[in-house]
Amino acid sequence: MIGPANLDYVAHNRGGVLRKGAMKGIVFSGMQPSGTPHIGNKLGALDNWVKMQDEYDCIYGIVDWHALTTGYEDPKEVGRQSLELAMIWLACGLDPQKSTLMLQSAVPEHAELHLLFSMFLSLPRLERIPTYKEKLREIEGRNLTTYGFLGYPVLQAADILIYKSTHVPVGKDQDYHLELTREVAEQFNRLYGQLFPITQTVHTVFPVLPGTDGRKMSKSYGNTSSLTDSEDMIKDKVRNMVTDPQRIKRTDPGRPEVCPVYAYYQAFAPQEAERTAHECRNALRGCVECKLGLVEPVQAVVRPVREGVETWQQQPDEVARILHTGSQQARGRAQQTVTEVREHLGLWQP
Amino acid sequence: MIGPANLDYVAHNRGGVLRKGAMKGIVFSGMQPSGTPHIGNKLGALDNWVKMQDEYDCIYGIVDWHALTTGYEDPKEVGRQSLELAMIWLACGLDPQKSTLMLQSAVPEHAELHLLFSMFLSLPRLERIPTYKEKLREIEGRNLTTYGFLGYPVLQAADILIYKSTHVPVGKDQDYHLELTREVAEQFNRLYGQLFPITQTVHTVFPVLPGTDGRKMSKSYGNTSSLTDSEDMIKDKVRNMVTDPQRIKRTDPGRPEVCPVYAYYQAFAPQEAERTAHECRNALRGCVECKLGLVEPVQAVVRPVREGVETWQQQPDEVARILHTGSQQARGRAQQTVTEVREHLGLWQP
Repeated sequence: MIGPANLDYVAHNRGGVLRKGAMKGIVFSGMQPSGTPHIGNKLGALDNWVKMQDEYDCIYGIVDWHALTTGYEDPKEVGRQSLELAMIWLACGLDPQKSTLMLQSAVPEHAELHLLFSMFLSLPRLERIPTYKEKLREIEGRNLTTYGFLGYPVLQAADILIYKSTHVPVGKDQDYHLELTREVAEQFNRLYGQLFPITQTVHTVFPVLPGTDGRKMSKSYGNTSSLTDSEDMIKDKVRNMVTDPQRIKRTDPGRPEVCPVYAYYQAFAPQEAERTAHECRNALRGCVECKLGLVEPVQAVVRPVREGVETWQQQPDEVARILHTGSQQARGRAQQTVTEVREHLGLWQP
Repeated sequence: MIGPANLDYVAHNRGGVLRKGAMKGIVFSGMQPSGTPHIGNKLGALDNWVKMQDEYDCIYGIVDWHALTTGYEDPKEVGRQSLELAMIWLACGLDPQKSTLMLQSAVPEHAELHLLFSMFLSLPRLERIPTYKEKLREIEGRNLTTYGFLGYPVLQAADILIYKSTHVPVGKDQDYHLELTREVAEQFNRLYGQLFPITQTVHTVFPVLPGTDGRKMSKSYGNTSSLTDSEDMIKDKVRNMVTDPQRIKRTDPGRPEVCPVYAYYQAFAPQEAERTAHECRNALRGCVECKLGLVEPVQAVVRPVREGVETWQQQPDEVARILHTGSQQARGRAQQTVTEVREHLGLWQP
């Protein structure tokens, strides 16, 4: 669960701009437009983002430049998916009246800050980030030993710090990157004078949802439901979910703790989770019946998103207007920070 | 000697924008504001830049972001030296009526192009550039294993290509970087469609001037004269120049081909070079006398620059105005290119 807004960050904001309670914490979080988000993204990220809108001053970015680090060969597809992602965000409840919804490439100041950070950022430090080598292994068949892919967390630090974000909601796997962001802020402040806050992580306590086959949920494994799947697709996917492999006969007792179907009950129908576990352990309910009971709870999550997207698809100009306005707002803030960065550096400004 | 403008580049500009003879070639060249330029910089670079102004559409950049790759710990000094470099350029004859004189950090579009190029640029390719490891060794006492220092040639490619430069005047030691610039252009054109010309090098035939001690001329060796040295400093430096170490007695015959004083005669008083060589080889002239004869030719090169700088120092606002205007002109062109780059990529532009 997220928040209430933890104002401890004030103690870290040595710039002294914020006073305790004087203003909301500032949140930046981004999502890559690289394929339709899945139900895990909604539960693990978007639902929290929606909640945070009331507690924080939130800037949410469609980080299309980040998508180029792995998708540089097909930027038009990144463009198409950016529009789709904007629709999904709106359908999930991100509200342009409450939050700033922006497109990274529409705020080129991110690139300037990225370049300036690169000047003092240690190369071995970047190469040592565990997620770097992990990702290099994960994404096969494409040559990712590029300068930009190594610089991914540098750009992420620029994304976060250009809005002087005090809080960032991240999954555990992003901790390494946020650690780097903090180091960048500290290094900048030490070299050129106090400017950036030391951003804090806000971890969600929501458990990571496994894929329908029990492995890590990932589009590349084909073991997930996207947020725009049809009723039939969801029905098929839930019915074909893997269950406890040791429960072979209907009369065998099951082990909910290793069964992805049970994990889904916990996420999508928590009020039925206890009874499900009991009936599974005592072979009172078969796996087929158990999965059938899960279909509607999953539909209930996906349906409003899919229908919301269908509505937004009728008005793409309005979606563009919302993102244009949000990006302009974000740009104003980014330009303010870049002006301060330039003053701190003291390069000649003729 | 530079030019006449070599229009062979038309054959390489597969975008078809240029027709042979239809317009001047476009030249970009940059200089780091990291210390006062020396007489070698004038003969090897600035004098050629001045000549090229009539033959090409020239953009000359004070590349202060590049200076940060090695000088990130003291950007205010980079700022001070940027203003000084502008004055030296003007004193050397770079003419804002003929050329675009700009400051890199005032055209942030360079940073955006740098970021986009980074996406497809191979990391091993950058690490293999011979000048990279060489420079790492050369500049001791500072930690240069930074992300930005490795990316130096990526930023240089952005500097050059953002103006669609067809020609770049470079020293032999920069050939590796220009080779990378050509690869970047080819890779971009292949991935996203024709946009950038394949930039050609324009080599100066002027021989590299050695330092006063016969080693490579370098500020770090203290073996050079800066373009703002006083009359007395120049006199001292020329009088203390190293000569042929085997010519010990006045009556020994000398070897002009190994003597830096002779190299300076060739550069600063070419009309006297032949007689000097003859008198040296036949011991008709002593080294002290020979060096005395070199003082005035060197003074004649430095004096107008130093005096020009003194004049510009009286009007720093005018220098700022010139660079501001030039940077704005450059920015207009850079924005045009960035617009085309964005169209070629096809990212969403709400």
